[in-house]
Amino acid sequence: MKNPLVGIVMGSSSDLSIMEEAAGILRRFKVPYEMTVTSAHRSPERTREYAHSAQRRGLQVIIAGAGGAAHLAGFIAAETMIPIIGVPIDSTPLKGVDALLATVQMPAGVPVATMAVGRAGARNAGILAVQILSLSRPELREKLLEYREEMARQVEETGKKLNKKQPS
Amino acid sequence: MKNPLVGIVMGSSSDLSIMEEAAGILRRFKVPYEMTVTSAHRSPERTREYAHSAQRRGLQVIIAGAGGAAHLAGFIAAETMIPIIGVPIDSTPLKGVDALLATVQMPAGVPVATMAVGRAGARNAGILAVQILSLSRPELREKLLEYREEMARQVEETGKKLNKKQPS
Amino acid sequence: MKNPLVGIVMGSSSDLSIMEEAAGILRRFKVPYEMTVTSAHRSPERTREYAHSAQRRGLQVIIAGAGGAAHLAGFIAAETMIPIIGVPIDSTPLKGVDALLATVQMPAGVPVATMAVGRAGARNAGILAVQILSLSRPELREKLLEYREEMARQVEETGKKLNKKQPS
Amino acid sequence: MKNPLVGIVMGSSSDLSIMEEAAGILRRFKVPYEMTVTSAHRSPERTREYAHSAQRRGLQVIIAGAGGAAHLAGFIAAETMIPIIGVPIDSTPLKGVDALLATVQMPAGVPVATMAVGRAGARNAGILAVQILSLSRPELREKLLEYREEMARQVEETGKKLNKKQPS
Amino acid sequence: MKNPLVGIVMGSSSDLSIMEEAAGILRRFKVPYEMTVTSAHRSPERTREYAHSAQRRGLQVIIAGAGGAAHLAGFIAAETMIPIIGVPIDSTPLKGVDALLATVQMPAGVPVATMAVGRAGARNAGILAVQILSLSRPELREKLLEYREEMARQVEETGKKLNKKQPS
Amino acid sequence: MKNPLVGIVMGSSSDLSIMEEAAGILRRFKVPYEMTVTSAHRSPERTREYAHSAQRRGLQVIIAGAGGAAHLAGFIAAETMIPIIGVPIDSTPLKGVDALLATVQMPAGVPVATMAVGRAGARNAGILAVQILSLSRPELREKLLEYREEMARQVEETGKKLNKKQPS
Amino acid sequence: MKNPLVGIVMGSSSDLSIMEEAAGILRRFKVPYEMTVTSAHRSPERTREYAHSAQRRGLQVIIAGAGGAAHLAGFIAAETMIPIIGVPIDSTPLKGVDALLATVQMPAGVPVATMAVGRAGARNAGILAVQILSLSRPELREKLLEYREEMARQVEETGKKLNKKQPS
Amino acid sequence: MKNPLVGIVMGSSSDLSIMEEAAGILRRFKVPYEMTVTSAHRSPERTREYAHSAQRRGLQVIIAGAGGAAHLAGFIAAETMIPIIGVPIDSTPLKGVDALLATVQMPAGVPVATMAVGRAGARNAGILAVQILSLSRPELREKLLEYREEMARQVEETGKKLNKKQPS
Repeated sequence: MKNPLVGIVMGSSSDLSIMEEAAGILRRFKVPYEMTVTSAHRSPERTREYAHSAQRRGLQVIIAGAGGAAHLAGFIAAETMIPIIGVPIDSTPLKGVDALLATVQMPAGVPVATMAVGRAGARNAGILAVQILSLSRPELREKLLEYREEMARQVEETGKKLNKKQPS
Repeated sequence: MKNPLVGIVMGSSSDLSIMEEAAGILRRFKVPYEMTVTSAHRSPERTREYAHSAQRRGLQVIIAGAGGAAHLAGFIAAETMIPIIGVPIDSTPLKGVDALLATVQMPAGVPVATMAVGRAGARNAGILAVQILSLSRPELREKLLEYREEMARQVEETGKKLNKKQPS
Repeated sequence: MKNPLVGIVMGSSSDLSIMEEAAGILRRFKVPYEMTVTSAHRSPERTREYAHSAQRRGLQVIIAGAGGAAHLAGFIAAETMIPIIGVPIDSTPLKGVDALLATVQMPAGVPVATMAVGRAGARNAGILAVQILSLSRPELREKLLEYREEMARQVEETGKKLNKKQPS
Repeated sequence: MKNPLVGIVMGSSSDLSIMEEAAGILRRFKVPYEMTVTSAHRSPERTREYAHSAQRRGLQVIIAGAGGAAHLAGFIAAETMIPIIGVPIDSTPLKGVDALLATVQMPAGVPVATMAVGRAGARNAGILAVQILSLSRPELREKLLEYREEMARQVEETGKKLNKKQPS
Repeated sequence: MKNPLVGIVMGSSSDLSIMEEAAGILRRFKVPYEMTVTSAHRSPERTREYAHSAQRRGLQVIIAGAGGAAHLAGFIAAETMIPIIGVPIDSTPLKGVDALLATVQMPAGVPVATMAVGRAGARNAGILAVQILSLSRPELREKLLEYREEMARQVEETGKKLNKKQPS
Repeated sequence: MKNPLVGIVMGSSSDLSIMEEAAGILRRFKVPYEMTVTSAHRSPERTREYAHSAQRRGLQVIIAGAGGAAHLAGFIAAETMIPIIGVPIDSTPLKGVDALLATVQMPAGVPVATMAVGRAGARNAGILAVQILSLSRPELREKLLEYREEMARQVEETGKKLNKKQPS
Repeated sequence: MKNPLVGIVMGSSSDLSIMEEAAGILRRFKVPYEMTVTSAHRSPERTREYAHSAQRRGLQVIIAGAGGAAHLAGFIAAETMIPIIGVPIDSTPLKGVDALLATVQMPAGVPVATMAVGRAGARNAGILAVQILSLSRPELREKLLEYREEMARQVEETGKKLNKKQPS
Repeated sequence: MKNPLVGIVMGSSSDLSIMEEAAGILRRFKVPYEMTVTSAHRSPERTREYAHSAQRRGLQVIIAGAGGAAHLAGFIAAETMIPIIGVPIDSTPLKGVDALLATVQMPAGVPVATMAVGRAGARNAGILAVQILSLSRPELREKLLEYREEMARQVEETGKKLNKKQPS
């Protein structure tokens, strides 16, 4: 995509099926994005360059997903001033508690906007990115409202169907 | 303050000393804000009105701090499309683990940008709000860089002092 | 069913197989109920209307099941004065610990009667609803005693069978 | 009090300052109650007699508070069919997590309506008891609404005071 | 078996495959035992009778396995003075943490000798029972030593085999 | 004391105030005991000698208290066949969860009878030791019954006093 | 292998597939090693002999993997002064939290260099052993740099491939 | 000190009283060290320079202590090939669980030798550093044995004193 506004990074290609949720949202909202793999620990130089060049390349938000001692989001947050959204991924025997705490418990001065562990968190990372972009892009605000309304409509339909199926 | 851009809400006045950290950051960055108390459970009507009127009143970001089954941030996030930042507060015997999970584990569709438990989280909520606002306010971006640099400078000074105090 | 006394709501249709346990109990005790889907976050308006109309429509108890940052029970509890029973559901990598804490750790003033995580909790929600209704419906009290006695009898039979199978 | 409708029991006299919160609510709502100490483990006979005689003596709800391997509420729930409300108390180094799990994770068939750990949970136990009683006592329903409204009013006042104190 | 010295009880027949580990040990050591199902919550009367008659019937130790809010071992411990061994069973979404805490965190005055969660714990319950019985039965002490030595021998053999398989 | 039947060991002298609870029980029941400090990690040789000589010196039960990665009870259990009772002690920032898991989660083959974390656990270790000894010492059985009855009596008295203090 | 520099031990042969990760690293770096099974609890004598003879036999580092109340690494650390690396293994219902805490929470005086739970931890144990050996073996330092660079290269390639696959 | 062999770094000067434990050990063993403050998040550039220059400046081991989402040790481990020892510090409401998981759960390829949370962990970091250095410095090996023996002697003395104080 040309001129991506959002960068999606993940610590390992095994995180891709989770992080695709974020990409799916951005495609739906027609927000240009880029997606790549880079690791805070195994390729710190690449990660730093990614973070340093982000603003210059026009990125407005970065979404970073990682598991275990998930430092990716915090590492990037320390190297750029654009908002960083962190997605903890359940990829160790500890079921994502490690990734959650390593992502959210950032020290004063360097925030990471942390999402839920796993798939729901990745999708919400996409939505939060759109919300942030929508502050200066009214057309996104409109679409967000539609998205929210459709979500409510779907819940309502499911609810009504369930209602009817019940024994009387 | 006139024309606040950021709303800070908390579930109880006992959360004030924590949430003041967010306010302090906003004052430092000269970002107009408002601050009030409202509860998802004890005053849901007031909370809903707060959320519904937020966008109309010009708020760009809302910071919500709460403890226990901390639903305040998620409640507001369900009622408005502007970005919501959640600060879990350690106010029960469970030490904030309850507030953290109740804030961060949002279902797909309704994100809350969750910060660390307690004081550091509140301060970071202020900084994240400034980062979000800075996307369309270049002067804030400048100040954020200065803030970050000063932070690094302070660490360096502390480090050097410590270095000198050591026995040789 | 006509004139339901108990409302069963859940945050997502994927919770249905769990929440059916509650419905099964109510059918067994011939307590009329209704069952639907509504979400605190994805359809807050629908949820609020559900809660507000509950008492007027004759509901005496509401059972609410949800996973993750499970706010459904607490949300409804904040909008009505009838007793709310919460069932935490294991639907995230955190295995229901998130749903349990988000349901049970309610602030002073707004109780949610919280059950065990998952299937056992859903069945117990049905039983607690019957117990509450039985306070003014002596015929339910009778049936509850029979249910309890049958349960004890079943345990006894299982125990005796096991006893006999043992090598001597 | 004559003809108590609610029984408050606790596993140890050291739980009294917590459980007083439940009693305070009942006094406020003019619901007659009794309060005593009995332990599932140290005085099981006394506890069983308490549970067995409860219904006969006219109790409609029992509130049971205990810490550690908190079996008191579950023990009583196994011996009577009236609704049992459990209050986990933080009285061991494990900060009430033990009491919470031992109270809430009841097997299918024997529910305990579990409240938050500690003081907030005890107060909510009182309110839930009133909510249950109110189903057949309209005057309590009225008072519950007033209580809820006063709570909302207090939040609003606190919020407005905070609003005014802010620097402009 | 005639004149059982050890009683094995479990809260549900679904715990049988786990508790068989304890029985297997007792058969190996030729310690007569009995095994049955009884529940602290679903058949409290049966459980109490079991506990009360234990000593009279000659039982020297009781092994009790249960999951969730696992009160079975503590319930029996409160009703008899013979040593009670508790086996927490992983049978809820919380993976046995609930059963472990509900079994081990007994209040001062009423001990339960708690084993590891699950299969290893059940086997160890059998061994601990034999150890306790061996204090007045020297022939068991002999067999325990042989068992321990065989265990060490097996580890050694496994270790040596592994050693040889390694590439050189 | 001459001819101790119970050995109390602890990993550090800072555990003494906790472990005194076990000693107090043994004195009350007039069971001769010995008490010393030895560490699985800092004095393994001493600990092994203690374990190896235990049976020869006439010890029937060993109570071992330790904090952190609490290996003391398991270490001794691996070196002797007499029953070992483990008391997890809350002496690190992790509040005894570490000591509990390191004590209770023993592998199949080597049981440790684990008590609650801290003071209550230490007292119960003393009582369990008396229960084990009582199997071949009828006079202890008698005293245990008295102890249990006095405990129940105390609960009853406390309960009655509380009853009377209530407003009528 | 002749003259092994690193010893890999594990508590059970079921840990082998995990611990093979450590061996694979050592083979890759051509560091001679030995691998065997020994248990702190089931074969303490063998474990002690292993630890005591380690230094004499030329071992420079020992890697110890175990699950549950994982005492193996700490047991060996108490018996020798060479560096011990501990690998917690997820082999109980508690998912390795028990093994992690039992390995890492060592008391002051006896360190265990603890790795992540499971496979990643075992591989890292191998790498840390090489890092330690490399301090006096410059050729290993060279190879470590190559390993690190290859790792970074692989991340980069994966990242670039992912980049290209994206829809434009 | 001239030519330090060990570097001690910490994320904040508030960690100094904990990290002094490591320094105290190094002084005792006459191992030259340096100590400074640097943060993975607030001064990443300084931290990277520290890591990059470490080997060139002759450091053989780095000890890194941090709290919260403790990335300091992992950050440095990603930038140098010398062994890194991590000390999790209890400095948030989550009591060091966050720091422990963020330090220990490193991905395959980049190990951090993790110590216990807090003071004991910091002291052990010093000892592990000496153990690593001792592999090529026989005089340190000698001192380590003395240290270990003195530790055992102290435990023995404490144990004997306690023995004597007991009532007979």
